Amino acid sequence: MKKSLIALAVLAASGAAMAQSSVTLFGVLDLGVESVKTNAGTITGLAPSANSSSRLGFKGTEDLGGGLAASFWLEAALNPSSGIGSSGTSTANQAGGNNIAAGGLTFNRRSTLSLSGNFGEVRIGRDYTPSFWNTAIFDPFGANSVGATLSNYTGNGSATTFVRASNSIGYFLPNNLGGFYGQGMYAFGNQANNATGTGYTTGENTSSNGRYVGLRVGYAQGPIDTALAYAKTNYAAGTNTASLLGTSFAAGNFTDLNWGGSYDFGVAKVMATITNQKLDDFVTAGNSDSTKGWSLGVNAPVGAGNVLAQYSAVKLDSAKSNKWSFGYQYNLSKRTAVYGIVARVGNSGGAASTAGSFSSGSLSAVGTTAVNANQNSTGLDIGIRTSF
Amino acid sequence: MKKSLIALAVLAASGAAMAQSSVTLFGVLDLGVESVKTNAGTITGLAPSANSSSRLGFKGTEDLGGGLAASFWLEAALNPSSGIGSSGTSTANQAGGNNIAAGGLTFNRRSTLSLSGNFGEVRIGRDYTPSFWNTAIFDPFGANSVGATLSNYTGNGSATTFVRASNSIGYFLPNNLGGFYGQGMYAFGNQANNATGTGYTTGENTSSNGRYVGLRVGYAQGPIDTALAYAKTNYAAGTNTASLLGTSFAAGNFTDLNWGGSYDFGVAKVMATITNQKLDDFVTAGNSDSTKGWSLGVNAPVGAGNVLAQYSAVKLDSAKSNKWSFGYQYNLSKRTAVYGIVARVGNSGGAASTAGSFSSGSLSAVGTTAVNANQNSTGLDIGIRTSF
Amino acid sequence: MKKSLIALAVLAASGAAMAQSSVTLFGVLDLGVESVKTNAGTITGLAPSANSSSRLGFKGTEDLGGGLAASFWLEAALNPSSGIGSSGTSTANQAGGNNIAAGGLTFNRRSTLSLSGNFGEVRIGRDYTPSFWNTAIFDPFGANSVGATLSNYTGNGSATTFVRASNSIGYFLPNNLGGFYGQGMYAFGNQANNATGTGYTTGENTSSNGRYVGLRVGYAQGPIDTALAYAKTNYAAGTNTASLLGTSFAAGNFTDLNWGGSYDFGVAKVMATITNQKLDDFVTAGNSDSTKGWSLGVNAPVGAGNVLAQYSAVKLDSAKSNKWSFGYQYNLSKRTAVYGIVARVGNSGGAASTAGSFSSGSLSAVGTTAVNANQNSTGLDIGIRTSF
Repeated sequence: MKKSLIALAVLAASGAAMAQSSVTLFGVLDLGVESVKTNAGTITGLAPSANSSSRLGFKGTEDLGGGLAASFWLEAALNPSSGIGSSGTSTANQAGGNNIAAGGLTFNRRSTLSLSGNFGEVRIGRDYTPSFWNTAIFDPFGANSVGATLSNYTGNGSATTFVRASNSIGYFLPNNLGGFYGQGMYAFGNQANNATGTGYTTGENTSSNGRYVGLRVGYAQGPIDTALAYAKTNYAAGTNTASLLGTSFAAGNFTDLNWGGSYDFGVAKVMATITNQKLDDFVTAGNSDSTKGWSLGVNAPVGAGNVLAQYSAVKLDSAKSNKWSFGYQYNLSKRTAVYGIVARVGNSGGAASTAGSFSSGSLSAVGTTAVNANQNSTGLDIGIRTSF
Repeated sequence: MKKSLIALAVLAASGAAMAQSSVTLFGVLDLGVESVKTNAGTITGLAPSANSSSRLGFKGTEDLGGGLAASFWLEAALNPSSGIGSSGTSTANQAGGNNIAAGGLTFNRRSTLSLSGNFGEVRIGRDYTPSFWNTAIFDPFGANSVGATLSNYTGNGSATTFVRASNSIGYFLPNNLGGFYGQGMYAFGNQANNATGTGYTTGENTSSNGRYVGLRVGYAQGPIDTALAYAKTNYAAGTNTASLLGTSFAAGNFTDLNWGGSYDFGVAKVMATITNQKLDDFVTAGNSDSTKGWSLGVNAPVGAGNVLAQYSAVKLDSAKSNKWSFGYQYNLSKRTAVYGIVARVGNSGGAASTAGSFSSGSLSAVGTTAVNANQNSTGLDIGIRTSF
Repeated sequence: MKKSLIALAVLAASGAAMAQSSVTLFGVLDLGVESVKTNAGTITGLAPSANSSSRLGFKGTEDLGGGLAASFWLEAALNPSSGIGSSGTSTANQAGGNNIAAGGLTFNRRSTLSLSGNFGEVRIGRDYTPSFWNTAIFDPFGANSVGATLSNYTGNGSATTFVRASNSIGYFLPNNLGGFYGQGMYAFGNQANNATGTGYTTGENTSSNGRYVGLRVGYAQGPIDTALAYAKTNYAAGTNTASLLGTSFAAGNFTDLNWGGSYDFGVAKVMATITNQKLDDFVTAGNSDSTKGWSLGVNAPVGAGNVLAQYSAVKLDSAKSNKWSFGYQYNLSKRTAVYGIVARVGNSGGAASTAGSFSSGSLSAVGTTAVNANQNSTGLDIGIRTSF
């Protein structure tokens, strides 16, 4: 829960003349013990963000009159287990783009400037891609922790624009369309029309390298929420190094088609996703292949907390992985919770997925070599999360 | 416009005992589409800071009594198109000093501690150099965007201390001198008296490498504002790699002499600059050469905005570049504006300047190889800027 | 002095319902001229943090009811002489762990999430190690400046966990035990049970590499404060490169045993420390050696300031260094002070310690090669510090 702390001060002290302006400081810290076991070994340690992504941000809105507003949002990823900002998170669209290797604080989660009104919202900068939301919103584990759905591509690959895109211009429909919602995004690759680079085929037009185009449309009314998303990112052949179900590939263009939906029965909210992620130009230009996945999850309020459970499965040709995930989150307050999550991954047909968390800075990123083909893997997260 | 948001809170809640203290959070986000064309190619994409440099900062003042005040200022550069802090901006004085390559947030725009009173202000830390101001204040485009004056050295070279210096001690005259103003700065190179390093000539005394000394004096009264500045930075021979009018040189000491002035006629403010930037020890020690430039600009309030125009020219021996710049900034509020800027650069005598923006993180930094000798180049910026 | 600036705003504006929450922005800026002289040369320049470590932080507390509270603390190191966050400060426990080379802002000083109540406090994340405190609290120069005690290991080595540890879980006794206090910390190495790496001996079990375990117990009542601390960090043989009294060693496990105490006579507070820092697996596995040190210091209020003085000595076998330190801090207010500090280091038996400041970003880190065996070295700091 984020509150307009600083904004309140302005309201109190300055009255009507400045009442239209606000700046808010907000954040999340989430830390816990994580353990991931494969046939190759076990790694146990402190890991961040299993329940909610740790962050620190500043945001604000200015009322321009006539229903128009200008707003900004600067949100930095945190890894509070070592105090660094982000670990190896790319902030450029191109495959192999600049990494924040040294861990300095950057507003890599979101960095946007918006103009909004009756027409909806135009949002510029670095933001979540429309094609990401379904695999997070309709995952009871919110794309974090060892429990996160396998059909979330972050667990199976590395397309730079899967979660977010830099250099983007987005448009959001207004929220008065009887439950219908939607957003579109175009993100520049910021390449010259005669750009060349490592891995580019001679003569190849690389001006579109890193360019993202995506769309998401949905409907939310009463207990129902459902949405469909599609996106394509252009990559020069061989520059998009993806790791699918434990195996690495050098690929090109990335296409992401996914659906998600939830129904709130009151005693529990049931949710599901179907995903299809296509990679072009596998090694030899011209080839393409798809990762297909699905998930079925539930989030049930029990006592002062929530029981979370999910089954997810993903396949690439004959390689198949599946995951059972269970968790419980106990709320100490609206802003603070403790939690425990367990997951078990199974592999067949050569797949080598692990139960590692997908969170940035998690142990799976730190550690244990995943010599896991056709083996099981288990994961555990126990931690505490607070927000402000 | 920066307001003492947090300060207001203190005033409201704590009364007189702490009323003398304030901490302010402030910032600018500026994003737009930029396109730069040379004979070698075109690059189009999202770029930051064409109207005003994007930033995030914290500053505060403490009243020490007796007219004395202690204050601090921490201001970080932002590139909101990707959320990173700064891109390749050096924070050390030496040519080839440490770069913030990874893009983490640093207070690279300004990081100072001040003691001020009737005597003026003593300011310590990293700050703008006195010799920078004329080429920014008397440029209608404020040293940003494709429209920025060519005589601004940032477009033509890379002396680390051209805009700012680390390890500095500055002094500012008090502001009650009948319109006269002035500042001086000494910045340590932080070198040992027996320092040696890559590129140093054996036996050369390099203890002064990176040392900056500068001065600026001016007069502002009614419609008039004019100032003269001079500065010298010591560099060991060959360590100051400068790019002048499109050609690279390995040089040494850098001397910057410049004048600027403006007269506000009411219907329009007219402004001009004259610059002379000298580099010693070109390749072969002992040589020196100068970049000479001038500009004439105008800023005219029209409707709810401002029309901006400028002609600027710069030459190095027979190599000459000139630029026509036009822009319009439309104010949505005191803090938020939309803008459009076009510029056209001409080259002769071997010069190869492009119309790229000088802003950190702009496309000119990202892209298109400037194979542009004796050719034209055009640039375009369309964007939105908000401040808080 | 850190005040709940933003917190006050919330209290003022929102009343009882949110009165239990607070977020505080706080910081220190400290800058001055530093000069360090050895027989090899002199370096003079601007350096940060001689009186107090420069920093910027955010912290907050949430009252969960029943005496329970959740709180967070994010504190970044600053080097305001160049605006960067930190310079080469490691944020991982392993010797040779990730360095923040580029200087981006990170919460490397402290990044913690706490749950506290009648039982004491459980603190998770990156924090000071229990074994660090005695050499800082019982040093009149607070482990900063040219005056800092030689027995502070930071002046003599580089064990990553000497000051802080990432991936830690700490426990603090409640503060109602009649003057007794205590804390313990366990920090994960975050290594897989089959981890291998550069410098590891084949077959060596490296799963504990970077693991820290430490304890501190003390008693503070009236004029007395005294505490004993012990800690061990596991390092794989040869990965912990330590520099002891000017000579470099490749070592393994690091053991730190130290005692400190102070007695406040009113006219002056007298303080002392005794330290023993052991390194295993020196070059050839199996060897071990210890650095032994002690210090005697005094902090006397004189006028509007404090006179500081200390003698400290440290030895490794026959190599011995000693230091005399004198300083005066004049308080302009409760938050702002100016200061001057001088120190002289003597060496014998092959020791080559310099009078360089131990602060991150200080000139000793920047400069002068310490060709100083059996020679003297002098240091000087003159500066100003403000906090908010």
